[in-house]
Amino acid sequence: MSQQGNKGAGGATGAGASGGAGGAGAKGSGGAGGAGVRGGGGGGGAGAKGGAAKSAISPTREENYAEWYQQVVRAAELAEPSDVRGCMVIKPWGYAIWENIQRSLDRMFKLTGHKNAYFPLFIPLSYLEKEAEHVEGFAKECAVVTHHRLEAGKDGKLHPTGELEEPLIVRPTSETIIGATFAKWVQSWRDLPLLINQWANVVRWEMRTRLFLRTAEFLWQEGHTAHASAEEATAHTLRMLDVYETFARDFMAMPVIKGVKTPAERFPGAVETYCIESMMQDRKALQAGTSHFLGQNFAKASEIRFLDTQGQLQHAWTTSWGVSTRLVGGLIMSHGDDDGMIVPPKLAPTHVVILPVLHKPELKEQILNWCNALAAELRKKRYADREIEVEVDARDIGGGDKTWQWIKRGVPIRLEVGPRDMEQDSVFMARRDKGAKEKQAVKRAEFIERCAAILEEIQSNLLARATAFRDQHTRTIDDRAEFDAFFTPKRQADENAPPEIHGGFAMSRFCLDPKVEAEVKDRLGATVRCIPIDGADDPGPCVITGKPAQKRVIFAKSY
Amino acid sequence: MSQQGNKGAGGATGAGASGGAGGAGAKGSGGAGGAGVRGGGGGGGAGAKGGAAKSAISPTREENYAEWYQQVVRAAELAEPSDVRGCMVIKPWGYAIWENIQRSLDRMFKLTGHKNAYFPLFIPLSYLEKEAEHVEGFAKECAVVTHHRLEAGKDGKLHPTGELEEPLIVRPTSETIIGATFAKWVQSWRDLPLLINQWANVVRWEMRTRLFLRTAEFLWQEGHTAHASAEEATAHTLRMLDVYETFARDFMAMPVIKGVKTPAERFPGAVETYCIESMMQDRKALQAGTSHFLGQNFAKASEIRFLDTQGQLQHAWTTSWGVSTRLVGGLIMSHGDDDGMIVPPKLAPTHVVILPVLHKPELKEQILNWCNALAAELRKKRYADREIEVEVDARDIGGGDKTWQWIKRGVPIRLEVGPRDMEQDSVFMARRDKGAKEKQAVKRAEFIERCAAILEEIQSNLLARATAFRDQHTRTIDDRAEFDAFFTPKRQADENAPPEIHGGFAMSRFCLDPKVEAEVKDRLGATVRCIPIDGADDPGPCVITGKPAQKRVIFAKSY
Repeated sequence: MSQQGNKGAGGATGAGASGGAGGAGAKGSGGAGGAGVRGGGGGGGAGAKGGAAKSAISPTREENYAEWYQQVVRAAELAEPSDVRGCMVIKPWGYAIWENIQRSLDRMFKLTGHKNAYFPLFIPLSYLEKEAEHVEGFAKECAVVTHHRLEAGKDGKLHPTGELEEPLIVRPTSETIIGATFAKWVQSWRDLPLLINQWANVVRWEMRTRLFLRTAEFLWQEGHTAHASAEEATAHTLRMLDVYETFARDFMAMPVIKGVKTPAERFPGAVETYCIESMMQDRKALQAGTSHFLGQNFAKASEIRFLDTQGQLQHAWTTSWGVSTRLVGGLIMSHGDDDGMIVPPKLAPTHVVILPVLHKPELKEQILNWCNALAAELRKKRYADREIEVEVDARDIGGGDKTWQWIKRGVPIRLEVGPRDMEQDSVFMARRDKGAKEKQAVKRAEFIERCAAILEEIQSNLLARATAFRDQHTRTIDDRAEFDAFFTPKRQADENAPPEIHGGFAMSRFCLDPKVEAEVKDRLGATVRCIPIDGADDPGPCVITGKPAQKRVIFAKSY
Repeated sequence: MSQQGNKGAGGATGAGASGGAGGAGAKGSGGAGGAGVRGGGGGGGAGAKGGAAKSAISPTREENYAEWYQQVVRAAELAEPSDVRGCMVIKPWGYAIWENIQRSLDRMFKLTGHKNAYFPLFIPLSYLEKEAEHVEGFAKECAVVTHHRLEAGKDGKLHPTGELEEPLIVRPTSETIIGATFAKWVQSWRDLPLLINQWANVVRWEMRTRLFLRTAEFLWQEGHTAHASAEEATAHTLRMLDVYETFARDFMAMPVIKGVKTPAERFPGAVETYCIESMMQDRKALQAGTSHFLGQNFAKASEIRFLDTQGQLQHAWTTSWGVSTRLVGGLIMSHGDDDGMIVPPKLAPTHVVILPVLHKPELKEQILNWCNALAAELRKKRYADREIEVEVDARDIGGGDKTWQWIKRGVPIRLEVGPRDMEQDSVFMARRDKGAKEKQAVKRAEFIERCAAILEEIQSNLLARATAFRDQHTRTIDDRAEFDAFFTPKRQADENAPPEIHGGFAMSRFCLDPKVEAEVKDRLGATVRCIPIDGADDPGPCVITGKPAQKRVIFAKSY
């Protein structure tokens, strides 16, 4: 099936010159039902009419999950690769989702006492070197600035000149540069706790990149705090992990498991790394956020010291924690279906799109007025902490094109309004959490009244669906052969697709021996995603070695 | 007079260990009145009590303007230099002001049809070279990434390795990288206009830096649009200039003059550069925002082409426009006085600070409760498009310290609440646009009722004051000797200070000969800031050459 060549940024998109691609209809899958657009009925010709088939994503998740992901990113106009290696262009729809993530998280950070600040993009090499594990962790993926001007050489071409005395690293994370500043800001216990957050771009020179999930440059927030005691810093590390869990669940509709990393997966320089892990629809784990207890490692490297209440000079205890544009990838893979993206209403840039059916020129103005008046009414209502965001899409392109564009973008509610709907004072409503064909006539007044409730239903449905999926693919495994089989990938329907789908999350006892962990990773591609915080002790033999183990950990393949 | 060593970030500041510095009292200047804190009266001991003198900025504007600026930035905790050459740390109070600038502008951009997106930090050298004037304009101040990893050399130290095939430039501006993307997004006239904005950091390797005004890295927004005709693109360039003018006037309380640049001051690669220029208190001009009509220059460089309604392939017409963290410097220099920063209420992170007077331990809880209840009442009210932001500063440090900290930060309204105030159900109010000593008892209910109106009064006062100052120092000059004298700097009171204060804006006829312009710049340090758009023709002899000239231009020294 041919891909629809969606183009343009945001509202400025055109219909493109495509047309005539055969093969209408779309493969249904899971709860999404079969695709296809509203035919016949009340709309007076809003249905698919010959020409280009505007249809679902190809390949389906079942056929080739990795390629499905790329096609959803493209079809939903979330992002695209740039000509700069590993760097992406975040398109308006994707960026608007990120802005909503930012706004919601930012409010939570401020409610927990943090203030935003901004620190330099560049880190002197000598700063990075101050913490030995830290520099080792990032040295292999650094963008290094070595010159500060360009001059024409003998070949007439421009070359870097003005070599810097000390190379500068484009920040891969800011512990060291922020630490140097904290050292100036902190002198007494009265200056603590110091609770700072930064929204910024960072660069890690990844060799294998994937839009949103792993890019050389990405956007993120990084919280950095300093405390007077280890207990307080640890408590803060966990508090921010809770903030991430709450955000993932209540805004992203993404259930997560909170846990602690094994040393192999720890942040370079941290004493302890905590994380939230979520299951994607290919049953892989996505590390969606991390919160690090840094002990006094960075305080010692940067000399962050304070006079305690006894007048003694001490090193502070610091934490850092972050989430990134990777979360947009998490949204796609948690909720997307074979029709495209599904944006949870709490993060949707547009909650409701109104699609006027404009086939009768003599009614065009009347219908548009009716739709705009409806939009104005809806905008007076609120959902969660925002006014309901409504767009009237009056572009003069085929109704099928338009409808599919919004389905693929994942807008929660679509309303079609044709002459007969208007006559009956009703709208034809489709919810993105249901199949593309499932539509329902609703009286105008009733829809306005219920709109926020419907959005909340969609939000809850998405969370329930993702939770059920995760639970369905999480298995308690105590037998080694079962464990191995669980992580042996199955072939996907598309024979060109990599055999990626495996069992999911294995909850198994593990002896925590790093060598065994490395062996499992090599052999099966599965790693310990985390040792769940909320899991009770459950002593018994390690699933791999049979040695005594205290707790179950989550083994999974991961992004 | 010793500088107060304010430290810490945001709410986490401590009193510091300073103390005993002599020389209380502060030099009054202009409308700000003499400094000093509330003595005797209703508060029961909230006044300045011996010890450290918490006082005004030293030096004053009159004594040494440039140094006054640096000290305000420091005392108001807006920003500080970092150890990375030319890069600043934006502290919480300064960043919160920037966030308010962002939010207000962002809303205006969206109302004019723009969507936000995000483009790569890095620009391949070959992209920058596509537009000849453009690369020439930026080649001398580029941060160049040449390597992508670090490895230990024979000396045991880390060195850059993994040389890139093509150097990457850290974006100094994004015309070329965004142009390459627009070329993919635009195919038909239906895709136009394409209206995009980006909030981002950019880097220009400036040799002489100054916090906010000129830093190697700064934060900004850059709008980039593509249009189907020159007329439409020009109209859009001017529309965004109007947006900047409105924002400067209505939010920053900063009067600006809209104009067009002479070729000498044009953006590299632009056909025409428009700007808003404002007068600072040292009578220099600050270019506060620019809007460029790029013609087809960048469309040709990046191959942004579209099929017009006639089916003809044409290059698009593009614009770009931006404002940056420099605006924070503009706020300081427009409104700040010898007591520190004054933040216009529309951009203030905190509108009202409540300072409980806590000298009587037995009343502490009662007073705090009273203050918190007042804050809760105030937060239910709105000013402009936000709820009124209130902070209760209950830190256990001297009342004089606290009061001065908030004066220096420029919070619009301070309320002191002591036992007697509470008894009388009133507050002791000070407005930052008046002298530090000018305070007034106001009944609680009356203050709650009038708070938004008082904030609006302060906002209007600041604009009126800045406008009067500018008008006072703008002179119509037709005589060459007078022109020369106008730009001959006077000595400042501090004999170590550079002789910086000159006349201000000269409105003079000018023949527009680039050679003459360069000569004036060399001899007097004044340049043509702009040819005002709103100025009518006023033919007559050029003030320098006597040759015929059509219009008056603004000559000024500038940042």
